[in-house]
Amino acid sequence: MSSFSSHFLPTQFLVSKPHLSQFPPTSPALYRRFPRLVMSAQSTTATPFDIKQYMIEKAAMVNQALDSAIPAKAFPQSNLLHEAMHYSLMAGGKRIRPILCLAACKLAGGLEPWALPVALATEMIHTMSLMHDDLPFMDNDDLRRGKLTCHKAFDEPTALLAGDALLSLAFKTASNLSSYPVDVSPDRIARIVGELARCSGTEGVAEGQLVDIKSTGLSEPVPLDKLEYIHLHKTSALLEAAVVTGAIIGGGSDEQIDRLRGYARSIGLLFQVVDDILDLTKSSEELGKTAGKDLASDKTTYPKLIGLDKSREFAEELLGQAKEQLNGFDSESAAPLVYLANYIAYRQI
Amino acid sequence: MSSFSSHFLPTQFLVSKPHLSQFPPTSPALYRRFPRLVMSAQSTTATPFDIKQYMIEKAAMVNQALDSAIPAKAFPQSNLLHEAMHYSLMAGGKRIRPILCLAACKLAGGLEPWALPVALATEMIHTMSLMHDDLPFMDNDDLRRGKLTCHKAFDEPTALLAGDALLSLAFKTASNLSSYPVDVSPDRIARIVGELARCSGTEGVAEGQLVDIKSTGLSEPVPLDKLEYIHLHKTSALLEAAVVTGAIIGGGSDEQIDRLRGYARSIGLLFQVVDDILDLTKSSEELGKTAGKDLASDKTTYPKLIGLDKSREFAEELLGQAKEQLNGFDSESAAPLVYLANYIAYRQI
Repeated sequence: MSSFSSHFLPTQFLVSKPHLSQFPPTSPALYRRFPRLVMSAQSTTATPFDIKQYMIEKAAMVNQALDSAIPAKAFPQSNLLHEAMHYSLMAGGKRIRPILCLAACKLAGGLEPWALPVALATEMIHTMSLMHDDLPFMDNDDLRRGKLTCHKAFDEPTALLAGDALLSLAFKTASNLSSYPVDVSPDRIARIVGELARCSGTEGVAEGQLVDIKSTGLSEPVPLDKLEYIHLHKTSALLEAAVVTGAIIGGGSDEQIDRLRGYARSIGLLFQVVDDILDLTKSSEELGKTAGKDLASDKTTYPKLIGLDKSREFAEELLGQAKEQLNGFDSESAAPLVYLANYIAYRQI
Repeated sequence: MSSFSSHFLPTQFLVSKPHLSQFPPTSPALYRRFPRLVMSAQSTTATPFDIKQYMIEKAAMVNQALDSAIPAKAFPQSNLLHEAMHYSLMAGGKRIRPILCLAACKLAGGLEPWALPVALATEMIHTMSLMHDDLPFMDNDDLRRGKLTCHKAFDEPTALLAGDALLSLAFKTASNLSSYPVDVSPDRIARIVGELARCSGTEGVAEGQLVDIKSTGLSEPVPLDKLEYIHLHKTSALLEAAVVTGAIIGGGSDEQIDRLRGYARSIGLLFQVVDDILDLTKSSEELGKTAGKDLASDKTTYPKLIGLDKSREFAEELLGQAKEQLNGFDSESAAPLVYLANYIAYRQI
């Protein structure tokens, strides 16, 4: 049993599968580390918020829409590009980014389906970043989510171009005025395109990936501030864009959007700290990708830099910061984002 | 002297450098193949339209704005991504796409500077496509515009991610509402983002590049319709987006935009046919990139498929079709686009 898990949660909370099955905890005693969560889930609803069911339902909605976004037989000459895009996009991700986007839209006053186009866009950008990151001259990964990576299932040119095309499709999908209700004004669409562009380029994923690669395999360890810089760009930026674009579509005020941005930055860093911990403590079979890779590749991670215990303490701190930002919102409406933060903290894959 | 050139133009038209120096022809006799061009350039202006000066001025405006779009010291941790983006973006392209975009904006009723953000975006997308196309597992090019390609000057991860970041920056630049005059409504911004996304992904550059790669080195030659499919996606789509987005920003009517779309498709294909011809007839020194590469790589080109003479006839036909679409516009306003079509047809690099 890892100290991170035992510090946060009762023993029986950690051994079951699937990983979502214990949300919410079934005994009041188990809530002792989630005071706000207890309030939001128990004081305003008859039954506790069912995060497992929530994620299953939203992921199904997202998966169906993603599947439709890439028609199989669109081109007379070649379907290869579509096949590769479809292969990677439908390879079984947890859809955390689009679900965050839908939840933020609702919290900001909209309906979840309003944000579906931009929610899909965040998953397309995420998938594209994985496809490029997996290439042989990058992280050189053969497995992703238990399946062959795109360049192994197809080839390198196909993976490169399918990634490029997914990035373009993200912007096409998010900018399509007719896919939003009339309540969503065009200036909001322009804003969300700007957010997506920011999170995927020099202020986000691409910058984070490059600094990450250039920091791997050095003789000296990467200092903590640089590690945080990498993760804030590589991981947090896109989670931030998912939450913020959802809130923009939902009609959130500037103050609400600022708070949700803060929430997203914390869970983004949290996501990466937990990823580092899982890479060290789980098997490849459990993760569906090559485990222990960070150790083997001399990649700097939080556990390597500050140890496993302090990494877990840092994760707890980030979780607290994320939830702090949700104060001031209606607790029932905020429940999905509270539980999603917990999910990111306590996931086992 | 090539038959293409002599078929189109008097001998003295072809030997001088720089390649823009003969626009416009200085003797009335030289206009015999450009009846509409003569009308537009001579009947409505005191002096013939000076395409050379026009392109120098517009390229300078574009270059200055591109240079400003990628600040040198933006990030505390790493400037590598910016350096690589800046290196490739400022490596001396002719800026045909942004110039077309500015010209179309003016023709549609706007002022040229209105379209500058989206004009820059077209050049960023173009540069990104070259950076990815030059990678070793793609076209494997060491030289581009007389300089080392990005992955040779930096390395492969940097070229990949700088390309990704340029694509994102294109969308960030084009979607920035505050960079347009108030006359440009947000719904037009959403439309241009859609056009840029369309031209760069499955309906444009990425699809064209993939089908091109998969059609190279086969035992059977690529049929003509497939070759056209490749070029319409790989080259025409982005030229089309440049012209169409310019026209949208300028406030063009749907009919005007349709005509300009037709113009752009023709010059896009023309651009590629001429590129194929130049690869066969020019030296590496003249082109600033590896010449004869298409022949060496078993790449199907127009000259290989239909011969050099018929390729030149096809180019003439496309030039005529492009100019046909400009009828109905005010001839003086249309002059830049007429001359730009000529420039694409008669360029020597």
